[in-house]
Amino acid sequence: MNNFESENKQEKLIVTQRSQIKRIPQRGNYDRETIYHILDEGLVCHVGFVVDTQPFVIPTAYGRVNDKLYIHGSPASRMLRSLIRSIEVCVTVTLLDGLVLARSAFHHSMNYRSVVIFGQAEIVSNSDEKLTALQAFTEHVVRGRWDDVRQPNLQELQGTMVLSLPLNEASAKIRTGLPIDDEADYSLPVWAGILPLQLLAGNPIPDSQLSKDIALPAYVKNYDRL
Amino acid sequence: MNNFESENKQEKLIVTQRSQIKRIPQRGNYDRETIYHILDEGLVCHVGFVVDTQPFVIPTAYGRVNDKLYIHGSPASRMLRSLIRSIEVCVTVTLLDGLVLARSAFHHSMNYRSVVIFGQAEIVSNSDEKLTALQAFTEHVVRGRWDDVRQPNLQELQGTMVLSLPLNEASAKIRTGLPIDDEADYSLPVWAGILPLQLLAGNPIPDSQLSKDIALPAYVKNYDRL
Repeated sequence: MNNFESENKQEKLIVTQRSQIKRIPQRGNYDRETIYHILDEGLVCHVGFVVDTQPFVIPTAYGRVNDKLYIHGSPASRMLRSLIRSIEVCVTVTLLDGLVLARSAFHHSMNYRSVVIFGQAEIVSNSDEKLTALQAFTEHVVRGRWDDVRQPNLQELQGTMVLSLPLNEASAKIRTGLPIDDEADYSLPVWAGILPLQLLAGNPIPDSQLSKDIALPAYVKNYDRL
Repeated sequence: MNNFESENKQEKLIVTQRSQIKRIPQRGNYDRETIYHILDEGLVCHVGFVVDTQPFVIPTAYGRVNDKLYIHGSPASRMLRSLIRSIEVCVTVTLLDGLVLARSAFHHSMNYRSVVIFGQAEIVSNSDEKLTALQAFTEHVVRGRWDDVRQPNLQELQGTMVLSLPLNEASAKIRTGLPIDDEADYSLPVWAGILPLQLLAGNPIPDSQLSKDIALPAYVKNYDRL
């Protein structure tokens, strides 16, 4: 959902003790636009919460509408029930862009873009906001899909729990570019460089019960996260 | 590292309260072989730990040797220092295999394979185990790479902190296959099916200082996670 307000594009988030990038701080980024682009390209977030003293890290889908991140699930979900009981949560989205192959084992690395969000999750009880969030989930996965599908009925709306997390305390961390070797290692006869990685779509597999006269939509045929 | 003992292949892990799959339990899997295959295909894990009452979820590389998962970093890393102070940690690896496009918004889903590991992280102080772990990190990213590169010197070994996590309490969760729509929705004129997704390598980018007479290794040219 690239629908954030254009006047916010240059906004930098406030850096807090927990959101500050400590290791290799030059990779840290607190621009709202950069953070939103990473969130909009990603498909899965990892949600961290604490039950007693035990951390849990659970992968789940998400959507973004302006300065809120939404996650959803069954009201019976342990994750959602724990999130609303947790005082603080942490949600992380990571995009892997490539393997960085240096001449020494030590300097091997990865190119990546990640976002770590801190905050308090809240139940979305307003029906309009809930429906907007459900639209965001579908559109986040496949832009253009929402208008084609049967939209949620009352029973489905009531059977879905939606939580929101404000995007106020977050940081991005980004590595790009070539390997950085020790000076003495550049003369070694070892191939070095980057192997780019990308999450790419394969050939769509139609449902076994799909009627032959239903054409493949352009948004599936030309699917692209970028 | 597909070097786990063959006699363990059929072994099921003990299911505990925290590792038991609660939502859609038929997607849960506790087979050591299944769990190891997911860990060996993944490249990034999400490490969850608690500082005071605040959860953190940080992406990082990892390696596996038999029934241990290893992560590493600088001894100055907040994550590593917090992990060894944490009583319990949680490490999650997620592979996204496809988008599941149903005829209703509600039944949209994703095909995925994930592993969630619970346990206590320990510092690896034995030099032999530490070097084996460093080899596993490199080989995990690109199999065949370790023998080609300059291996860690004493300073690098001492400048790397390695933590191990036993693979005793873990579970996999897997969704495969076609969308499952409400019976009444199958007659809707909506395309439905799966859009497979895969993390694929692009064309390798040689380092700008790479000598022209160094050939691209086969393990980079034919890179494949499967």
